[in-house]
Amino acid sequence: MNYLLKITYDGKNYHGWQIQENALTVQEVFQKALNKILNAEYEIKGCSRTDSGVHANEYYVNVKTERNIPPHRLKAALNGNLPSDVAILDSRTVDEEFHARYNCIGKQYIYKIWNSEVKNPFLDGYALHYRWHIDEDLLDKAAKHFEGKHDFTSFCTLDQRKQENMTRTVYSAGVTRNGDMIIFKIEADGFLYNMVRIMTGTLLRVAQGKFAPDDIPGIISARSRKKAGPTAPACGLYLNKVSYKKEDLCEPE
Amino acid sequence: MNYLLKITYDGKNYHGWQIQENALTVQEVFQKALNKILNAEYEIKGCSRTDSGVHANEYYVNVKTERNIPPHRLKAALNGNLPSDVAILDSRTVDEEFHARYNCIGKQYIYKIWNSEVKNPFLDGYALHYRWHIDEDLLDKAAKHFEGKHDFTSFCTLDQRKQENMTRTVYSAGVTRNGDMIIFKIEADGFLYNMVRIMTGTLLRVAQGKFAPDDIPGIISARSRKKAGPTAPACGLYLNKVSYKKEDLCEPE
Repeated sequence: MNYLLKITYDGKNYHGWQIQENALTVQEVFQKALNKILNAEYEIKGCSRTDSGVHANEYYVNVKTERNIPPHRLKAALNGNLPSDVAILDSRTVDEEFHARYNCIGKQYIYKIWNSEVKNPFLDGYALHYRWHIDEDLLDKAAKHFEGKHDFTSFCTLDQRKQENMTRTVYSAGVTRNGDMIIFKIEADGFLYNMVRIMTGTLLRVAQGKFAPDDIPGIISARSRKKAGPTAPACGLYLNKVSYKKEDLCEPE
Repeated sequence: MNYLLKITYDGKNYHGWQIQENALTVQEVFQKALNKILNAEYEIKGCSRTDSGVHANEYYVNVKTERNIPPHRLKAALNGNLPSDVAILDSRTVDEEFHARYNCIGKQYIYKIWNSEVKNPFLDGYALHYRWHIDEDLLDKAAKHFEGKHDFTSFCTLDQRKQENMTRTVYSAGVTRNGDMIIFKIEADGFLYNMVRIMTGTLLRVAQGKFAPDDIPGIISARSRKKAGPTAPACGLYLNKVSYKKEDLCEPE
């Protein structure tokens, strides 16, 4: 069977998704639980890496195995064996060819900024604390310039993906406020390394008056990491939604 | 000066407010910060104890000292010296006679229940996980019976306050749902030991169909702890608001 599992995790205590030597990752604790249940070989594919400290409201992984367990049983068994900061939200079987990363057609990230003079004790590791007042309308105006198909080299950590195609299509980008919480939400067909965090750092430069919203198109077209703002910390970043074609998510015949 | 400080804290890693031997409390870390700044004797009064693991969106403490520091400076200095899970929201001077507990005229608590089949990785220690569907309208009906002036012996941990007056006036009580989050909110002139947690445990008995909403008046009038439901865990409980008379909060002449 090829199982597709929808996961959510609090990334505060993990070095991202992907397994590493000498650092605890979500994949490691997930596989530990899986090993107990499957007791058989399997192939596993996550929909994305994610950096150390980044959270996931929604993350997908597929697991190919010879074992045949009803999906709801696999979900319950995994939830019974996972630590309290990782949970399985959904489990289904998909086509043998389905690959959580290659079949993905879009992702949505949010970045949370606690915008108050005083830090919020409940948000340490869960939002960036920014103490000076942010004009969310100004940031929203700036974020709208990210929309469309662009070469996002300026918003990618240098030398990481030199050979790759740096063009991505941003379906929507915007900034809203809910009380003292500022949320930057962005959806695209894919993201370059650190793209959302560099965009957030650039939006904060707009908040500081160092960039105007209309400077964004020039920063994009410069194709130079140096033109954009700094990389915002990982703690505020959440993988929020992952999209697949509807027909891919149907149980196979 | 007599300073009144408004505090917020994440209680997950603390054994409540009040200083204890061999257990870390919020008062201890607060006084550690205060000692560095004041470097003088002081008298300190918190508005309430709070149990191990209980949180505070708002908590008040007053500090009497010979030192004379502008309130905003004291706030900034404390925030610079407190750990990330405790913060000072407001600082002002009040009358010499003001006492954070005795002058308090009302408190509001909320109790959070994550009502979804699957636990929420971000709420471990911050809400009770209850996996079976809760009918919030039924619980709201039950909670409304708490309103008014009653002897709440049935909702107080046994033998804790035998000598005391067990009558409290509940100004409002209700249950609402926001997505998968159920919130029980209650405001009163004061609370008995474990009162909100026992009320929550009783409301969950209503959710299970073991009590009807209209059983609540009988449970109250029985004045017996055995008639009410179990004590719900501390993790879902938040001291949400503390009320003082307006004139008490004015800066003294």
